[in-house]
Amino acid sequence: MADQFAASMASVEPGSVPSLRWEERPEGPVLVLLDQRRLPAEEVELVCTDVPALVDAIRSLAVRGAPLLGIAGAYGVALAAVRGFDVAEAAELLAHARPTAVNLAYGMQRARAAYEKALNDRLGREQAAAVTLAEARALHREDAEASARMAEHGLTLLEELVPGGGFRVLTHCNTGALVSGGEGTAFAVAGAAHRAGQLRRLWVDETRPLLQGARLTAYEAARAGMAYTLLTDNAAGSLFASGEVDAVLIGADRIAADGSVANKVGSYPLAVLARYHHVPFVVVAPVSTVDLATPAGSAIEVEQRAGHEVTEFTVVPPGAGAEPGTGVPVAPLGTTAYNPAFDVTPPELVTAIVTEHGVVSPVTRAGLAELCAGPQQGSGSEPG
Amino acid sequence: MADQFAASMASVEPGSVPSLRWEERPEGPVLVLLDQRRLPAEEVELVCTDVPALVDAIRSLAVRGAPLLGIAGAYGVALAAVRGFDVAEAAELLAHARPTAVNLAYGMQRARAAYEKALNDRLGREQAAAVTLAEARALHREDAEASARMAEHGLTLLEELVPGGGFRVLTHCNTGALVSGGEGTAFAVAGAAHRAGQLRRLWVDETRPLLQGARLTAYEAARAGMAYTLLTDNAAGSLFASGEVDAVLIGADRIAADGSVANKVGSYPLAVLARYHHVPFVVVAPVSTVDLATPAGSAIEVEQRAGHEVTEFTVVPPGAGAEPGTGVPVAPLGTTAYNPAFDVTPPELVTAIVTEHGVVSPVTRAGLAELCAGPQQGSGSEPG
Repeated sequence: MADQFAASMASVEPGSVPSLRWEERPEGPVLVLLDQRRLPAEEVELVCTDVPALVDAIRSLAVRGAPLLGIAGAYGVALAAVRGFDVAEAAELLAHARPTAVNLAYGMQRARAAYEKALNDRLGREQAAAVTLAEARALHREDAEASARMAEHGLTLLEELVPGGGFRVLTHCNTGALVSGGEGTAFAVAGAAHRAGQLRRLWVDETRPLLQGARLTAYEAARAGMAYTLLTDNAAGSLFASGEVDAVLIGADRIAADGSVANKVGSYPLAVLARYHHVPFVVVAPVSTVDLATPAGSAIEVEQRAGHEVTEFTVVPPGAGAEPGTGVPVAPLGTTAYNPAFDVTPPELVTAIVTEHGVVSPVTRAGLAELCAGPQQGSGSEPG
Repeated sequence: MADQFAASMASVEPGSVPSLRWEERPEGPVLVLLDQRRLPAEEVELVCTDVPALVDAIRSLAVRGAPLLGIAGAYGVALAAVRGFDVAEAAELLAHARPTAVNLAYGMQRARAAYEKALNDRLGREQAAAVTLAEARALHREDAEASARMAEHGLTLLEELVPGGGFRVLTHCNTGALVSGGEGTAFAVAGAAHRAGQLRRLWVDETRPLLQGARLTAYEAARAGMAYTLLTDNAAGSLFASGEVDAVLIGADRIAADGSVANKVGSYPLAVLARYHHVPFVVVAPVSTVDLATPAGSAIEVEQRAGHEVTEFTVVPPGAGAEPGTGVPVAPLGTTAYNPAFDVTPPELVTAIVTEHGVVSPVTRAGLAELCAGPQQGSGSEPG
């Protein structure tokens, strides 16, 4: 049943990374995804005409990244509604595509609720479908707008932290358009600096073990026409020591109420290096990332991932969950690996947290709570 | 002409890593090398019966590591002498096998000088050959003895720095028997702790980009029966943060007169992390590594290596110098990489330098110069 097919990228505008878009075609509406499994070697789009196709794409990590999955979930429900499929069944399928993806469930639920409310309001199925699509588009737009606001706040902050401009920014993992409905988080700030003619160099950590920096961030930087250079995570120390880093910009997977930041493993060593070298360490994330129910960093449970991600090299995409034994072994048989997915950076090492509501700096429990309550007044940026 | 052949490892004793040995066989003497290109997947020995075979092995990195190359160079000259080949010609071949390998030239010259002196002393060719072999064996033995003394001094130091024993040691790159005539440097200290029942865990950094930790140190740790765990270089921060590291032990490629340590890239970030977490950072290296002619760390020129080591994954052995384009690309075509081979750790971040002459701690210019002048009196270990 799954009806998805690969299309050439002839229609892709240079400079943009269209990770996901809704398209009205003569043969009916479709959801077009950039197949992230094939990056950076190939740019191929997947065209989904029904929800089973989309679920396949989600399961196989052709589409990934928390905010983007939320948007995909909402469009998936809209696709079912507009094409006249069973919306409840489609929603169920999406809910089980990746059970731990909170954003996916959120986007799906939001679109489904809009559809059901429309039916309850005695709108016809066609009108209800239009309402559902409008809801998906609203979510998409909100996410893009949040990115834009983070980019704006982040750039203002950078200009204050690094007088003189010409920023040399170090980043880790992938935080751009490939995980977002807009330009992403930390990468969006680099993008804004680039467009302002202020990005001298983007240093891209390769981000072992899954190499999201090498595979995805380098790809986005190349498409955006940035001056970027890849490095092993190991080599960041040399860059700091030779004064080649003006600021570190990273995203966040979860931020505790005390401002502790859980992010891709390797973030914490960068924070320690940044502190040692008096370089600002800036976290960029939407307020939805702040979990006020988690009181402190020590309460964040860190996922331990399979050792074969470290002991074997696989050519499958980041996070695709290759089976053990299918890669090229780089360590003796039987070697066990310590492979935490994340690390936790305490608030005292974080110069600032940038959200779509504004900036908190220094990072305090009260400042963070205030920011979560609503947008800052004034410029939206008030670094300490 | 090169006469080398692969042999099974049936004769290898468990626990030892016989990276190189001289063997008297019924058909004549041979130099037996562990083929490091095939580690950790396979343990295969190369049997060299002449110098061209040895030169092939050196060129292709079947045998590698500065001290080990010196020993190989000396045995190579001995092999030519004992088997009645032209010694001058053999020495020339060895001299050009890897032009930048200073130790190789040193070992070759030392054996050649012994041979020529013997001839000048009017010994016959057979006796001169015996003298040459004795010189190679002396060099081998000296290197092994230096390892043993470093191990002893290092273990004493560890016992002082980490009261209570049960050390959890983090190491980087490969510093064991695969690069040495003995047990190596930092790895030799871990080995001594292991034999004393005091090594609770060896944390092995994979050491990107060439993965010497994953490929070689994990192999040596497995063979030695140590409790070891591999990690991405990224994940060391999490280990420090959770209090899982009692000491860092690394080797050195060059030590400046001020105590600055040039070592495999990724060493400096470990030194900064160790300092931040109040964990001892210990460098283990023979006094020959100390270069008193280099006044300070800033005078050390760091080799920049080819970007394809980072942008492509290759299955060839560490340092084998794969051609660009022969690996699996992990970054977009055209990506440039910052790929320094080494980094430099300033003396204020180094808790101690352990040599075969003893220990200097704190690391000072005067203390280092004194150590280079000759062995310490007394126990040989005097941490500050």
